[in-house]
This record gives sequence, structure tokens and C-alpha cells, in this order.
Amino acid sequence: MAIIRHDPGPLLSLAVEHGDTVYLAGIVAKNVKNDIKGQTEEVLAEIDRLLAKAGSSKSKILQATIWVTDIRNRGPMNEVWTKWVDPKNLPGRACIEAKLADPAALVEIMVTASK
Amino acid sequence: MAIIRHDPGPLLSLAVEHGDTVYLAGIVAKNVKNDIKGQTEEVLAEIDRLLAKAGSSKSKILQATIWVTDIRNRGPMNEVWTKWVDPKNLPGRACIEAKLADPAALVEIMVTASK
Amino acid sequence: MAIIRHDPGPLLSLAVEHGDTVYLAGIVAKNVKNDIKGQTEEVLAEIDRLLAKAGSSKSKILQATIWVTDIRNRGPMNEVWTKWVDPKNLPGRACIEAKLADPAALVEIMVTASK
Repeated sequence: MAIIRHDPGPLLSLAVEHGDTVYLAGIVAKNVKNDIKGQTEEVLAEIDRLLAKAGSSKSKILQATIWVTDIRNRGPMNEVWTKWVDPKNLPGRACIEAKLADPAALVEIMVTASK
Repeated sequence: MAIIRHDPGPLLSLAVEHGDTVYLAGIVAKNVKNDIKGQTEEVLAEIDRLLAKAGSSKSKILQATIWVTDIRNRGPMNEVWTKWVDPKNLPGRACIEAKLADPAALVEIMVTASK
Repeated sequence: MAIIRHDPGPLLSLAVEHGDTVYLAGIVAKNVKNDIKGQTEEVLAEIDRLLAKAGSSKSKILQATIWVTDIRNRGPMNEVWTKWVDPKNLPGRACIEAKLADPAALVEIMVTASK
């Protein structure tokens, strides 16, 4: 089954196609001065961009893992998530608290999708 | 490849079929007054229900991620896990500590399975 | 789709083949007296061994989740990671902080790969 890798950096590729499945990297915001809502919006826009590049879309997400650095930010993160997701095509999801690589990042999201 | 989504809520679907693979959401207990063993039993029963609904079973789990809010609960969680899993068909697994959305929940389990 | 399980223990299998996809367990070092670099080297060598057993290799990794017990260890972990990965075939990746089952383990890595 063909493997196609997108946006490779020094450590990882931001998206990897494997047959009919797309694996994304954990995405964090670059504008880490923004609050949780702004960072979530940026992360989801980047996920949109990467899924499109790999022939997928947010309506085809299968599973998402969301890490927030403070679980109390789950509420405002969910507000942005709810406006973004396709309500007729909701993925499986887990949201847990964890420290992230950039201490100013508030949220990281990693998704697996179908093409 | 067809995508079939089960038990959608406001934020996520509890199970998603993608061809021959089934992706579940991270499952937590509803009866959070129970101890780690009781919560693990409830989570695994819900995973049984969702896998059956998606045409799979615990004997076909490929990979599991288990988050416990206190890593010292891994022992009693494992006691329940060991009684539940199919010893001839054990999945890959990672068990780490993390804070969960509900501060009274003690364990969350997310699995990927074959149909 | 055929499921082939490798190196089963009491709780989990270290690798599971499902069609053209290979799911590994979260791998930790056994020599936990080593520092983060030594532990990362041991973990990646074990991942090499398991991927080979399942008909895959590090050049075919699709997605990796890396847990470090102290996010400040991400730097030295990444030094070892960068020497190990195939720079032309980089996987998606997330690296977050979490407590692990063995309090002396410093890093755990779980990967999904293609055959």
C-alpha cells in the first residue's frame, strides 16, 4: 500500500497517507500568545489544510486525540471544536491533560482520517 | 472505503467503522463513585457493547491506550483488564497517567480494533 | 483481514499485524538506570526488532506517540530520534509529558506502521 508523506520537517511529517487512511502529526498553534480559543482555531485550520493536502477533510476524521495543558480549558476548546466539526460526521475522540513541548502552547490535536 | 458512525453525541461518535477497522472514542465510566476496579469494569463493558455494534469484539482489538489519573491505580486496573481480555488475542497497549475531563473519573480507555 | 500477534505477555502483545498495518505496544526501556538518551536508544532498538518481526521497518512508520516523564528531556530524546529515523520517510508524531507505569522509565514510544 502506497505511503505518501507531506510537509516533512527535521523530526516528523505533518501528514502521512497510507492507502485510504491519513495520519496527521500532533498539531499545535504557532501564535502561542493567543488564548485557548485562538490556539484551538489555529490548530483546526492547520488540520483542515493538512487533510485537504492528503485528499481528506474534517468530515472524514475517524479518531482524534486532544491534549490540553489545563483540563479546565476543555470547555472553551470544545466551543471552538463544536463550531468546527461536521455534526453529521463526528469522530471518536479522547481529551486528556498533558504538558506539551512548547510551554506556551495550550492545546495539541492529533487526528486519523479516511480519504 | 465506507465510514459508519455509531452513537454520535454533541462532540464525538463513540465508534467509527472504516473498512475493516473500528476506531472507538476514549471511554470513561458514568458511575464515577465506583473505585478503579468498578470504573474499569464499566468502561470495558461499554467497549464490549460498542465493538459488538461495529461488528467487532474484544478478541479483535489491535491497539489500546489507557489513561489512569493515578498511575498507582494501574495494578487494580490490570486485574480487571486481565480477566476481561482474550488471553490468546492480546492487543498492543500503552498505559500512562493523565488528568481526565471529569475529575471523578479514574480511567479512560480508547481502542482500535479489526472487524 | 488477518490479524497476527507477536510477543504476547500477560497483558498485551508487543506487535499486532492487521492487513497492511502494524500496531506496536508502547515500548519502554528495561535498563531504566540509563539516562534519557540510553533509554531512547533501547526503545528504538526494540521498535526496530518488533517492526522487522512484523514485516515492517522504521522507514514505514506512519504515526508515533512519545511520552516523556519530564518534557525537558524532549531535547536529548530528539537527538537520538533524529539519528534513528529515516530522514526521507518521517512519520507523524506527537510528544507529550506523562507519568509512566515504571517510575524509573523516562520515555515510552508507541508506533503504527505500514508493512
